Amino acid sequence: MSRDEQPLKPWGGRFSEATDAFVERFTASVGFDQRLYHHDISGSIAHATMLARVGVLTETECREIVDGLEAIRGDIEAGTFNWSVSLEDVHMNVEAALTERIGPTGKKLHTGRSRNDQVATDIRLYLRDEIDTVDAELTRLLTGLLDLAEREAGTIMPGFTHLQTAQPVTFGHHLLAWFEMLQRDAGRLADCRKRLNQSPLGAAALAGTTYPIDRAYTAELLGFTAPTENSLDSVSDRDFGVEFCAFAALLMTHLSRASEELVLWASAQFDFIALPDRFCTGSSIMPQKKNPDVPELVRGKTGRVNGHLVSLLTLMKSQPLAYNKDNQEDKEPLFDTIDTVKDCLRAFADMVPAIEANREAMYAAAKRGFATATDLADYLVGRGIPFRDAHDIVGKSVAYGIDQGRDLAEMTLQELQQFCAIIEADVFDVLTLEGSVAARNHIGGTAPSQVREAVGRARRRIAAG
Amino acid sequence: MSRDEQPLKPWGGRFSEATDAFVERFTASVGFDQRLYHHDISGSIAHATMLARVGVLTETECREIVDGLEAIRGDIEAGTFNWSVSLEDVHMNVEAALTERIGPTGKKLHTGRSRNDQVATDIRLYLRDEIDTVDAELTRLLTGLLDLAEREAGTIMPGFTHLQTAQPVTFGHHLLAWFEMLQRDAGRLADCRKRLNQSPLGAAALAGTTYPIDRAYTAELLGFTAPTENSLDSVSDRDFGVEFCAFAALLMTHLSRASEELVLWASAQFDFIALPDRFCTGSSIMPQKKNPDVPELVRGKTGRVNGHLVSLLTLMKSQPLAYNKDNQEDKEPLFDTIDTVKDCLRAFADMVPAIEANREAMYAAAKRGFATATDLADYLVGRGIPFRDAHDIVGKSVAYGIDQGRDLAEMTLQELQQFCAIIEADVFDVLTLEGSVAARNHIGGTAPSQVREAVGRARRRIAAG
Amino acid sequence: MSRDEQPLKPWGGRFSEATDAFVERFTASVGFDQRLYHHDISGSIAHATMLARVGVLTETECREIVDGLEAIRGDIEAGTFNWSVSLEDVHMNVEAALTERIGPTGKKLHTGRSRNDQVATDIRLYLRDEIDTVDAELTRLLTGLLDLAEREAGTIMPGFTHLQTAQPVTFGHHLLAWFEMLQRDAGRLADCRKRLNQSPLGAAALAGTTYPIDRAYTAELLGFTAPTENSLDSVSDRDFGVEFCAFAALLMTHLSRASEELVLWASAQFDFIALPDRFCTGSSIMPQKKNPDVPELVRGKTGRVNGHLVSLLTLMKSQPLAYNKDNQEDKEPLFDTIDTVKDCLRAFADMVPAIEANREAMYAAAKRGFATATDLADYLVGRGIPFRDAHDIVGKSVAYGIDQGRDLAEMTLQELQQFCAIIEADVFDVLTLEGSVAARNHIGGTAPSQVREAVGRARRRIAAG
Amino acid sequence: MSRDEQPLKPWGGRFSEATDAFVERFTASVGFDQRLYHHDISGSIAHATMLARVGVLTETECREIVDGLEAIRGDIEAGTFNWSVSLEDVHMNVEAALTERIGPTGKKLHTGRSRNDQVATDIRLYLRDEIDTVDAELTRLLTGLLDLAEREAGTIMPGFTHLQTAQPVTFGHHLLAWFEMLQRDAGRLADCRKRLNQSPLGAAALAGTTYPIDRAYTAELLGFTAPTENSLDSVSDRDFGVEFCAFAALLMTHLSRASEELVLWASAQFDFIALPDRFCTGSSIMPQKKNPDVPELVRGKTGRVNGHLVSLLTLMKSQPLAYNKDNQEDKEPLFDTIDTVKDCLRAFADMVPAIEANREAMYAAAKRGFATATDLADYLVGRGIPFRDAHDIVGKSVAYGIDQGRDLAEMTLQELQQFCAIIEADVFDVLTLEGSVAARNHIGGTAPSQVREAVGRARRRIAAG
Repeated sequence: MSRDEQPLKPWGGRFSEATDAFVERFTASVGFDQRLYHHDISGSIAHATMLARVGVLTETECREIVDGLEAIRGDIEAGTFNWSVSLEDVHMNVEAALTERIGPTGKKLHTGRSRNDQVATDIRLYLRDEIDTVDAELTRLLTGLLDLAEREAGTIMPGFTHLQTAQPVTFGHHLLAWFEMLQRDAGRLADCRKRLNQSPLGAAALAGTTYPIDRAYTAELLGFTAPTENSLDSVSDRDFGVEFCAFAALLMTHLSRASEELVLWASAQFDFIALPDRFCTGSSIMPQKKNPDVPELVRGKTGRVNGHLVSLLTLMKSQPLAYNKDNQEDKEPLFDTIDTVKDCLRAFADMVPAIEANREAMYAAAKRGFATATDLADYLVGRGIPFRDAHDIVGKSVAYGIDQGRDLAEMTLQELQQFCAIIEADVFDVLTLEGSVAARNHIGGTAPSQVREAVGRARRRIAAG
Repeated sequence: MSRDEQPLKPWGGRFSEATDAFVERFTASVGFDQRLYHHDISGSIAHATMLARVGVLTETECREIVDGLEAIRGDIEAGTFNWSVSLEDVHMNVEAALTERIGPTGKKLHTGRSRNDQVATDIRLYLRDEIDTVDAELTRLLTGLLDLAEREAGTIMPGFTHLQTAQPVTFGHHLLAWFEMLQRDAGRLADCRKRLNQSPLGAAALAGTTYPIDRAYTAELLGFTAPTENSLDSVSDRDFGVEFCAFAALLMTHLSRASEELVLWASAQFDFIALPDRFCTGSSIMPQKKNPDVPELVRGKTGRVNGHLVSLLTLMKSQPLAYNKDNQEDKEPLFDTIDTVKDCLRAFADMVPAIEANREAMYAAAKRGFATATDLADYLVGRGIPFRDAHDIVGKSVAYGIDQGRDLAEMTLQELQQFCAIIEADVFDVLTLEGSVAARNHIGGTAPSQVREAVGRARRRIAAG
Repeated sequence: MSRDEQPLKPWGGRFSEATDAFVERFTASVGFDQRLYHHDISGSIAHATMLARVGVLTETECREIVDGLEAIRGDIEAGTFNWSVSLEDVHMNVEAALTERIGPTGKKLHTGRSRNDQVATDIRLYLRDEIDTVDAELTRLLTGLLDLAEREAGTIMPGFTHLQTAQPVTFGHHLLAWFEMLQRDAGRLADCRKRLNQSPLGAAALAGTTYPIDRAYTAELLGFTAPTENSLDSVSDRDFGVEFCAFAALLMTHLSRASEELVLWASAQFDFIALPDRFCTGSSIMPQKKNPDVPELVRGKTGRVNGHLVSLLTLMKSQPLAYNKDNQEDKEPLFDTIDTVKDCLRAFADMVPAIEANREAMYAAAKRGFATATDLADYLVGRGIPFRDAHDIVGKSVAYGIDQGRDLAEMTLQELQQFCAIIEADVFDVLTLEGSVAARNHIGGTAPSQVREAVGRARRRIAAG
Repeated sequence: MSRDEQPLKPWGGRFSEATDAFVERFTASVGFDQRLYHHDISGSIAHATMLARVGVLTETECREIVDGLEAIRGDIEAGTFNWSVSLEDVHMNVEAALTERIGPTGKKLHTGRSRNDQVATDIRLYLRDEIDTVDAELTRLLTGLLDLAEREAGTIMPGFTHLQTAQPVTFGHHLLAWFEMLQRDAGRLADCRKRLNQSPLGAAALAGTTYPIDRAYTAELLGFTAPTENSLDSVSDRDFGVEFCAFAALLMTHLSRASEELVLWASAQFDFIALPDRFCTGSSIMPQKKNPDVPELVRGKTGRVNGHLVSLLTLMKSQPLAYNKDNQEDKEPLFDTIDTVKDCLRAFADMVPAIEANREAMYAAAKRGFATATDLADYLVGRGIPFRDAHDIVGKSVAYGIDQGRDLAEMTLQELQQFCAIIEADVFDVLTLEGSVAARNHIGGTAPSQVREAVGRARRRIAAG
């Protein structure tokens, strides 16, 4: 027998007219909030345990309730639970099943709480677990980046600004830039977790409850650091959702930048890397294509997450306290953000170690484009020319080189001396790519030795958590 | 036997490594794009019909293909179709089923097109139909507003600015303000439809095709006004999605404003309206509550649609031509926007005719708050006082009234004359609510007769389409 | 003497306490709304003219007011006007100056209107003029694109999907894709103008006015097509701002895509184009750099405009009718959007005709990358192979080519026949780039003749307005 | 003599064509980045000091440069500095002035750095100072909230959910909900400061520099905790801007919620509070109005800040490393966000202590609306009725009360017993407002004693920083 046949709503008492069928579907959340079942049941078990401790429930009642809830969790995980839209949400579905299963004692579970603090508790518990999963994937990606950076610490490629060749850098150094971005994201994620980890349970509808509850005890049972400080805030607060989505939007922005670079580098024009076939797809019409679908898709998914952040901010704007039905709209953007971030991190963590650098193509590209022009300027400054004047001399040399179709290292000493008589034969030492990168030998610089040291420091940061 | 067992991808030829299982799921779209099946099949039928006309297919082949596609459409609608994630998307699922059903002829369907123009065609066809549905719901809401406005053309309520009582208006007049907002939305929707109604079919992958296709004929078969002008643009353009979401964001903004007012008006403090029980829900802890869930939820859903607009704009930003995998992300925001808008319009169209005005409470509120202060100022101006001086006189009268706890109409003539000797007994004619609203008797004004005329004009606008 | 010394606020009468100095600055808008002065004065002149026609002002009063306003406009344009923050906004600054200049008659100007309808009128008039300016710049850019497309109608370049070489296209064809995007923007702009071109003047504070105003007459004087239909809506509506920003966000998105391509093409790796020095800047440290600053900056400004759209949507969400102070925040996002769009269009309209195509590099790139693989597939289909099988054959040929380091056209007939015995010597006709593009000879296709025809049609569309 | 007459750009050497005048204005940032002058000069002084320490500059050169920079800072603050658009930005303006003032030594300042690391340093220094200012204003507001909450700890008002009367709460308790929101914002701000406080100086253009710089020393001189770890990341990272704007968007969302409530409470319908005149403005047409302009404007400014967050996220999306001109667009959204947040916090910090609670109106409103219905349910549960059954009994009692026009406390015992025979005379103890709030006596509950304890804890949290 379906629970749908039961006429009861949790709030039906004073209503003279049944909810419209469309309105019932329109306002129901069970279609998307059922993923909270696990944490809903955990929260209920903690609540019942506390009620028994303070004497509101007997130990027997508590045991019946806890056993019933565990059994329901089993049913849900076995796929045999019968979800009902007319019971609106995950909370009422579980509670109705409990009463069906254990009788009137089931109705006592809701003593001293409300759906308002219950849902706030569920989302925090759920999000906390998902944050831990996200953090694990992020750490896996960070570790993969360090491994690849170490392997490519000495691989020379052109460093770009404005997508113009600027100075030679090493590929490992470039990958460590990605590492830094994502490491900051990990810090933001940890801060978000820290702030959300408080227990709203006991705030009840909005004002607290008259039952002699022990909020510190439920907080402890659920692994929260403390109960929240204010009941009105507890039921209306969705900061954790916004903060998580803000973290996620910035993370996706970082992944979009890395993706953009992977797509560029995989093009025939750059040809800096190859992605294994399993991260690519082909074309239904062009058999020669090997499309970098995974980074493209990750790049596109940035939009989705930015959008969800805007959704939540718009949702909360101007809402008077305490709970309003608007807040039911907090879940789908948050859930989809979690799913998206997990998938994208997984895709990247799988893909990054499989990136194959085309070292020859990178080196050849760095040799073109006057990448060591700054080194020539620095050479001149080292011989007493003010920087701005040296810049001007090099500018004229480059203009000449473009005209002649030759890079700086390909000119004769005489040619170079046209622009500054002070130049001598040792200039060619600094015009090599190897010399250029090795000379940037300070913390944060692109010298291979610095890259290796940076990898070491980064490994220690990760190990330190 | 499941099609999943087939090893084939549409592009498998040059690939040496199978797609990773996670990557396959990550990059597949069939989970959400299968709702395009109807329009995908319509597009394929038109394409096959055209291919037969120009001689690329024989009539027999065409008939086989069309019959096969119709049969597949039947299977899908009967729920017996076996969707396969490894076939990536709706297009490949349908095509693979076709070949399975009719043999090698099925493989000829894709001649002269690509998934790139195919999906662009499908979305346009789908969105065009959904626009028509949205338009019908919007018209139903507009009509309901006019009926209610006509019924309440003479109902006096306070008009607010800054949520402070400003001047009396009629409830019918207020409802017509909602009508105007939504009527503009209908105009934007029609403009969006007009612009999207062009056929990208024939753009193929990006450059057109070498087959002797007749793009004008497929456009005509599919009800498009013309083929699109440029193949590269045709496969990369998602303007229609952005434009629809921009329409939707503004529509939802309008509904959020109406919702905010309904929530305010249903509060005990305002008590201007009652919403029938079937549009409300109750509380699991507070039995006395009757919560205006439907307007609250609509207000909250504004965030969702604003977010989707941002998603699509972010998605398209900086994408080089022509098609990139990023664009797979165009569908979910668009689909959810369509669903949300349809649901919210339906909820409002059902609810608006059921709004019950509490006319006494509205009238009583309008009598408080010095709502006719402007009328006193106008009275003074009519007797030769410059407007800015009249404003000052009335300001002092109001300050006196607040101090005394009486509205302007409740003062004696002597009291009023303290502030301006020119005031005579006829001033009390303009200080009544009825006199005040009736005097705003010009197009767009709040006089009941103007409201009724405005309703008439509005009905004619709707009838004219 | 400064008007700041005057103690008057337009609404000071009932207030017992002066505005706080910080609050005065915080709430004042004159710092940014003074740019509306021209249209504010135009609106006031029309209003005064109407008041004289209906007998509220004498002809002499009207003349004094109009002359005074014209003189003030002269002062503002001469830079001699003394703006006062304590007078809050442009409207009060102008009105106070009028009264100072012509005496008490100046105070009569505000009869029968309010700042609420006044500011709504001003913004519409201002935006309408700016739309016309934007439209002119957009048309200039569109025309420049057509000229360049015509010049490059036969220039062959690789067409990309997923930034992988897909099929050869012509550069002119690619530029026409940009044209199509921007042409749709022009359509949206015209629709926005059409919808905003109604006169809110006469809506007064929110309910209309008791004066015998003639709204149709002021509408006509100001070039509006009609008065607005509802006074409450007229003072609370900011749809035109949102709609303009939505237009602008999509326009900027299109420009960001074009900018992305220009930046890519100007890189050493692509080297498809050169931008003249005057649209580039250099580096303070790397003398060899020539950075495509203008397209980069345009690409970056997309963010700004998307942000303004979100600002306005967030602003309007949930606002109850009619006017609220929130709406003062409508101006800066709108003004900055207008400025940004005008600048970006101007930059592009100047830059596009100066783009120099590096035809050799484009051609060479198209020759690499198996760009004619689809043509081989089509060749096979033409000889009776089902499309999906042909795709597979070509896929294997490409895999062989990659392995051998040769493109399809560089293989021998024997090599090709390994993959399909049906291939004959005539295959080499379709494997040339010229043959490939010429064969895509249908409306919207990339064949040079089609590009030229498309340019012709586009010129006629622009000429038709 | 103006520096505009100088022909030099910092990068002019290889360019053959002058920048277009419009392009010069379009790409220049000095109009908005000059506010960085103070921190630009501080950064330069630290850089010069370090260059002297490592021997790249002599002590004399260093002293000349530092004195020159200090003198320039004096000129700027005295308003006598001549800003030049043709020198593009604040950095070049300052450097050109330095060279003009001290001769060729000025040109040596730029040794070992680039505008890329220079601007990154400047923005971090600037933002760090502004964060401290924002934090001080936020603390002032938090303190004001605690004072008011303490004063109103025993003031009873209706607590709302869905804007329907739910349960009585105290006004102090409600204000503490605002406190909690804003306290979380303070935590996010501190986290943002912590993460940004690293020195990018020394990253140079993108790869570090060949000069023997000491990055740890400049970091220390500038109060940074450490140098950044990667040069490419250092010049491309704008996370701090995004993170600050995300903080600000959530802060503004909180202020929008408080503002919404202030506007509601100041309406005639609620009448819960009065705002002093100095935070309000009046109407140009309706002399009786006293509009809560400050909270309305703050509410509206939420849109602005949300928009800026979207701007920055859109800006950074898909940017390849390292620096691109796009990033010039990072400043205006960030600067305006800072200004907006400071102003809004100042307005609130000034206004909150001046809020006057209308205690009688609050109490009267709480007495209406069956606010103690939950207390009746709890009473029944205390006598053994399962919660869900008690809920039902109360629901029927409320329906009866609505029908009779009487609240629960106004019914006779006999009337109440109709719905449940178990009810006795002591029920009236729990149906009073005072009894209801006092009974919610646990951490986070609304009991006055809990509110006072919460204020105490909060004061200690603030004191602990």
